[in-house]
Amino acid sequence: MTAFRYESLGRDGAARLGRVHTAHGAFDTPAFMPVGTAATVKAMTPQSVAATGAQIVLGNTYHLMLRPTAERIDRLGGLHRFMNWSGPILTDSGGFQVMSLAKLRKIDEQGVTFQSHLDGSAHVLTPERSMEIQRLLGADITMAFDECTPFPATPETAAASMRLSMRWASRSKGAFVERPGHGLFGIVQGGIYPDLRRESAEALTGIGFDGYAVGGLAVGEGQEAMFSTLDVTTPLLPDDRPRYLMGVGKPADIVGAVLRGVDMFDCVIPTRSGRTGQAFTRRGPVNIRNARHQDDPRPLDAECGCPACRDYSRAYLHHLARSDEILGLMLLTWHNLHYYQDLMRSLREAIAQGRAATFAQDFAALQALGDIEAV
Amino acid sequence: MTAFRYESLGRDGAARLGRVHTAHGAFDTPAFMPVGTAATVKAMTPQSVAATGAQIVLGNTYHLMLRPTAERIDRLGGLHRFMNWSGPILTDSGGFQVMSLAKLRKIDEQGVTFQSHLDGSAHVLTPERSMEIQRLLGADITMAFDECTPFPATPETAAASMRLSMRWASRSKGAFVERPGHGLFGIVQGGIYPDLRRESAEALTGIGFDGYAVGGLAVGEGQEAMFSTLDVTTPLLPDDRPRYLMGVGKPADIVGAVLRGVDMFDCVIPTRSGRTGQAFTRRGPVNIRNARHQDDPRPLDAECGCPACRDYSRAYLHHLARSDEILGLMLLTWHNLHYYQDLMRSLREAIAQGRAATFAQDFAALQALGDIEAV
Repeated sequence: MTAFRYESLGRDGAARLGRVHTAHGAFDTPAFMPVGTAATVKAMTPQSVAATGAQIVLGNTYHLMLRPTAERIDRLGGLHRFMNWSGPILTDSGGFQVMSLAKLRKIDEQGVTFQSHLDGSAHVLTPERSMEIQRLLGADITMAFDECTPFPATPETAAASMRLSMRWASRSKGAFVERPGHGLFGIVQGGIYPDLRRESAEALTGIGFDGYAVGGLAVGEGQEAMFSTLDVTTPLLPDDRPRYLMGVGKPADIVGAVLRGVDMFDCVIPTRSGRTGQAFTRRGPVNIRNARHQDDPRPLDAECGCPACRDYSRAYLHHLARSDEILGLMLLTWHNLHYYQDLMRSLREAIAQGRAATFAQDFAALQALGDIEAV
Repeated sequence: MTAFRYESLGRDGAARLGRVHTAHGAFDTPAFMPVGTAATVKAMTPQSVAATGAQIVLGNTYHLMLRPTAERIDRLGGLHRFMNWSGPILTDSGGFQVMSLAKLRKIDEQGVTFQSHLDGSAHVLTPERSMEIQRLLGADITMAFDECTPFPATPETAAASMRLSMRWASRSKGAFVERPGHGLFGIVQGGIYPDLRRESAEALTGIGFDGYAVGGLAVGEGQEAMFSTLDVTTPLLPDDRPRYLMGVGKPADIVGAVLRGVDMFDCVIPTRSGRTGQAFTRRGPVNIRNARHQDDPRPLDAECGCPACRDYSRAYLHHLARSDEILGLMLLTWHNLHYYQDLMRSLREAIAQGRAATFAQDFAALQALGDIEAV
């Protein structure tokens, strides 16, 4: 069976072209991972997710441990079989969502005790339990259990939180069961403080992981602080391991992060926006619910090859959104995921051709133009 | 361009095998038409609707006249282009839904005045306006404007209602603009009273239509009364025109009606049930939300070739339904429409082979067995 590894295929400045090999096949980087929260990328079949170009999806430990439970998914043959996705799957550790969704959270050195937001039942997440759950799910990429440092945080709070996460990272590594093609990623924390990011990166590389994530960003600090944190963080990470910026982001965030050496992304923005009528286009976002689309026979984006753009007018997509029709959610989600995968394809191509910086400039200029005028 | 016509391909007792030719191609009968209320079969793409085997879909005049309006759909190239369905479309007249959905309805000889259930705006539906709307939509099959007689109704009420519908049928015929491949259907009313059904059928055949519908059934009268009404009604209809039983029904209703000479059906049951967790199988209905499915690795129906049965376990479909995931609605809707089209295929095959009655017996016996036991 394939060993888990990062294959470097090229560089352009700090931007990296690569491929990550896992037990369920390889994926090209820079990669965007659609979020399959509860064992489904919302409003999409796995076949349509794959048709957008996605090669890896993300599952959420917190959601799945509560329903249908990791043990049940294990008995049913693992998450891949359960949700009918044969490609690589990355699972988060539960650390982020337990803090944002669960009730009556109590955090201590051991881990987090909490009540389910679904039925109030009591649960515990520790580094050891998180590793067990992710193993039961069958994740190709397991994330170390960490605390997502709140923003804003004082240097003292950020330091204490980061150091707890580093102790948990060490316990995660100890509890992780090695299997061919399965990797464990550590998560760099430290808020917006360069010294703390450095300390965290050194702690993690000292432990040794198959990949490194940058956590605690896209939590309100703004794009500038995110980019400057990446500027100090990614150079500290080993060149031969994949790098994952968690929970990011908007298209411009992704472009900027790729230029700073990030390989992997996940975010609910394309799927969630698709369910609220916001569509991404080469010329920026479009709110399809806006009345100016109601008589517009043109596609959302004439250059896009997704079914929403190929088969339907803006007028029809507007009608579906206004009528709260499920097909509207399906088509806009599909479009947005297609847009994100198109963006990743374009970024990989630009890196391969040594024009990543030019691509980023052209991208920003086109986005700034704004949507074509309504007829 | 093709003329609108019914082609007879065989008989088995009263059951008929045929094909209806329209401006947008032909469809095989007996046929089930998925309901595309607001220019979309809920939770399905047109491609997936076609993949179930559906050859014709239904659109609702009442919904579409209010939103996005018939005039807008006309400007955008008609309903086929708007919703990306290139096959035949039948539209209802609005008569049924204006009575069940609209507010402040007032009915008189001229037609119905009402307020939209969406925004309270004032509208009028008359036979002439219904014909105009259906023409603007581009329907291949236009339904005469009628009043759906309430159930229960006294003979006097049913007679008065039916005679109003017959006067409206005549006005519908007068207002219908003949176009090659486009047909107009009259609707037999008369409640559960054989004499009134006969009077209605004679009135309609006297006017002359391209097809004949049986209306006012599946409104609470029960299967026995429905079948006995069909027994007296279908023999009164011309042999060389298609016959359509409106708003029917459950699988057993369809089987019984096909044996009584009905060619066309529409019903929201497969789509609506799919959104509430009810699935149809050869062994009767299954409520996938039931806890007994939560660990069941088997498909919903091992003999079904739809994506829900091919790619997923009952445990997964249960999880999706319990989690209110959109994919759950998509997959169960797909399954139910596939089941209905499989049923129609089997019925056509049985008629072709002269074993329609045997098929109906086997069908009932299998349904009576009930669902396979949970593991």
